[in-house]
Amino acid sequence: MAAGRISVGLLGCGTVGGGVLRLIAQNAARIEARVGAAVEISRILVRESQASRGPYCDASRLTTRAAEVVDDPGIDVVVEVMGGQAAHELILRALERGKSVVTANKLLIASEGCALLAAAHRHGVDLAFEGAVGGGIPIVRTLRDAFASDAVTAVTGIVNGTSNYVLTRMVDAGLSLEAAVAEAQALGYAEADPSMDVDGHDAAHKLQILALLAFGAFVPPGSVHVEGIAAIEPIDHRMSARFGHRIKHLVVGRDHGDALELRVHPTLVPERSVLANVSGVLNGVVVTGRALGPCLVTGQGAGAMPTAVSVVSDLMDVARAKVAKVPGFGTRGLVLASRPIVPMAELSTRYYLRFVVADEPGVVAAIAGELAKERVSIEQMVQEARPAHEGGGATIVMLTHRAREASVQAALSAIGREVYMRAPPRLFRIEDV
Amino acid sequence: MAAGRISVGLLGCGTVGGGVLRLIAQNAARIEARVGAAVEISRILVRESQASRGPYCDASRLTTRAAEVVDDPGIDVVVEVMGGQAAHELILRALERGKSVVTANKLLIASEGCALLAAAHRHGVDLAFEGAVGGGIPIVRTLRDAFASDAVTAVTGIVNGTSNYVLTRMVDAGLSLEAAVAEAQALGYAEADPSMDVDGHDAAHKLQILALLAFGAFVPPGSVHVEGIAAIEPIDHRMSARFGHRIKHLVVGRDHGDALELRVHPTLVPERSVLANVSGVLNGVVVTGRALGPCLVTGQGAGAMPTAVSVVSDLMDVARAKVAKVPGFGTRGLVLASRPIVPMAELSTRYYLRFVVADEPGVVAAIAGELAKERVSIEQMVQEARPAHEGGGATIVMLTHRAREASVQAALSAIGREVYMRAPPRLFRIEDV
Repeated sequence: MAAGRISVGLLGCGTVGGGVLRLIAQNAARIEARVGAAVEISRILVRESQASRGPYCDASRLTTRAAEVVDDPGIDVVVEVMGGQAAHELILRALERGKSVVTANKLLIASEGCALLAAAHRHGVDLAFEGAVGGGIPIVRTLRDAFASDAVTAVTGIVNGTSNYVLTRMVDAGLSLEAAVAEAQALGYAEADPSMDVDGHDAAHKLQILALLAFGAFVPPGSVHVEGIAAIEPIDHRMSARFGHRIKHLVVGRDHGDALELRVHPTLVPERSVLANVSGVLNGVVVTGRALGPCLVTGQGAGAMPTAVSVVSDLMDVARAKVAKVPGFGTRGLVLASRPIVPMAELSTRYYLRFVVADEPGVVAAIAGELAKERVSIEQMVQEARPAHEGGGATIVMLTHRAREASVQAALSAIGREVYMRAPPRLFRIEDV
Repeated sequence: MAAGRISVGLLGCGTVGGGVLRLIAQNAARIEARVGAAVEISRILVRESQASRGPYCDASRLTTRAAEVVDDPGIDVVVEVMGGQAAHELILRALERGKSVVTANKLLIASEGCALLAAAHRHGVDLAFEGAVGGGIPIVRTLRDAFASDAVTAVTGIVNGTSNYVLTRMVDAGLSLEAAVAEAQALGYAEADPSMDVDGHDAAHKLQILALLAFGAFVPPGSVHVEGIAAIEPIDHRMSARFGHRIKHLVVGRDHGDALELRVHPTLVPERSVLANVSGVLNGVVVTGRALGPCLVTGQGAGAMPTAVSVVSDLMDVARAKVAKVPGFGTRGLVLASRPIVPMAELSTRYYLRFVVADEPGVVAAIAGELAKERVSIEQMVQEARPAHEGGGATIVMLTHRAREASVQAALSAIGREVYMRAPPRLFRIEDV
């Protein structure tokens, strides 16, 4: 580190990278005052050095050779905004060479976060990743700093703006799932292939990162229970509203002491709850602390500038730690361990169940009987006739009291085999957040 | 500072102080790992040393002499949770003696925050006060750290749990203001004298502190426009709901570049907005950044344990800075200046206006005419008959398009003099947050 100057290497210069350059240029004096040294982007890795990069990019700093960034001993901090798995080796190399790293790469932190944090620790440098979860909302910071003196018992939230936009439009404009996805794509809120968003896998990656910060847990890929939103039909939104709820695509993480509950699925939440009103492309996460109680943070969960703000705030943190020659707050005291995961079969919660049935006497009694056999108790029920153009028959929706998942699934499986059933039963879980 | 140990003096040992002792005892190992040194409470100032202080208080550390805390060269950090103006001199003395200070004293930070920050800066120590605004919600931290690389253009929020509880109960249970206040007192949510909460002065103090962090502005006491919630009647809640809004007691701070807008008053917000759904004793603050857009933080705004969590998180920050021998993040780069305040007469917003009038033909036209003279344009209007037991006549409610406050006030003042008026006109402002 040159006296009074932190030298930064930028990996990638797309929209987020451009935002980072702009924020650093526009706030240079304020950043210097808070960091205690000037922060300067000295090298920028790009794929093609000829392409124009906008007004804040000094073309003389561009390189197409990664080694000129991660191997240069003059560079103090590496900021990775190129995305993808290719960044893995570059980040690891930078950490090994004593550089602190800031990244917004959720896929990488979800899968390799533990190993990367361990590498940072081993080499006495910092790894910061606020931009990897919830774009611009300060959720990593809140978990790390605000809850530093409390024990986090749960994190629950909406962490995918695309699926939240789709659900919001299904409710507000009565669109089908397909039409809402098409609209999101037309507006640039969803990618050409929105499957990671719609099927919940993007949200699951973010839940892995939240679990790492909230519970100090290393969660191996594939160990989160994931359901997408494709099974939701317009009638489910209408029925949820009738019961005073809205359907949101939630991530739920809970620390039961002996094991963690980790799941991503469509969930009914009370319509007056704060999460029910996190609409459109917004993200929102409720962190519950033993002493602090629930605390919600919400805002733009994606987008180049919000993510760039998180990246630059992280850069200021790790640069300041470099200047002070102390480890940053992020990597101290974060003891990571493997933790057992509660099997879904053992989950205990409330359920919304929907049955499409033949319109015959005795069907409600038959369904209630199968549920009773498994000791699943019904709290509320609605039956309505199904229009002829949808095939006729009736729709029955039941809300249960708290029950074991295994019991509910066993009952549904028995009910699903009955002759009066016109379609497979549907199940959504209910949370009081 | 003894090697590997941060010695803390605690001023006050009521419910918040007790919570601080408990959190430090319960999380000692984690705190030590993150701070880089053990954090130890070595002296506790109390009024009467005989009184029992609960299981986490070591009686041998109690003193009734403030000098034994603030003048002891062995103490590194002073935590002030005694409250009131008396703490002012003690905090100043501690800063002068090179001790960093953590306080939850909103009255003091609102009135003396600038002078105290200047003193901390002069003596090379930190002053942290997360507990002074919004109890346990990390709003100071969010403004200070998450928005470090962005420019804050507005802070808007609900920062008084008592008045929010009262409004929530008026809406949900149809209570009168008096009955809701009595209920809040019975539940311990309101003090015996709830006037600071109901009249908005407590919220104004918090807005002064938010303005300090968000805009770097020193706001002299008395320069915030303050209105309480006493003027709200049940019909205002009903009418607001009819127009798709809810009334909340908001603080609004906006940076117009040349001047600041700072006000506290009952405000209509759209019922699907996140702030509309911050209910009961919860607090919630929306911070809007130029790049980040709006970001809401909500949670328990008061209570001993939430406040204690904020205090201990702050203590960890300043203790860590002491260990590293660098200034904490809180006091670096916070350049405070006096800023002009936009006079209320020049405010431009939308309005909810309510008139109690004689039920005669031509009254709506007359009111509309007076508004038109001042170029105030009506967006929506509802007229309904007033029950005989309330004195009869009619109630007219109008929502205006955006208008200048001075124009609206001039029109209301003219209308108020008309013979058809049965009561003074009521005005509430509307915000789209």
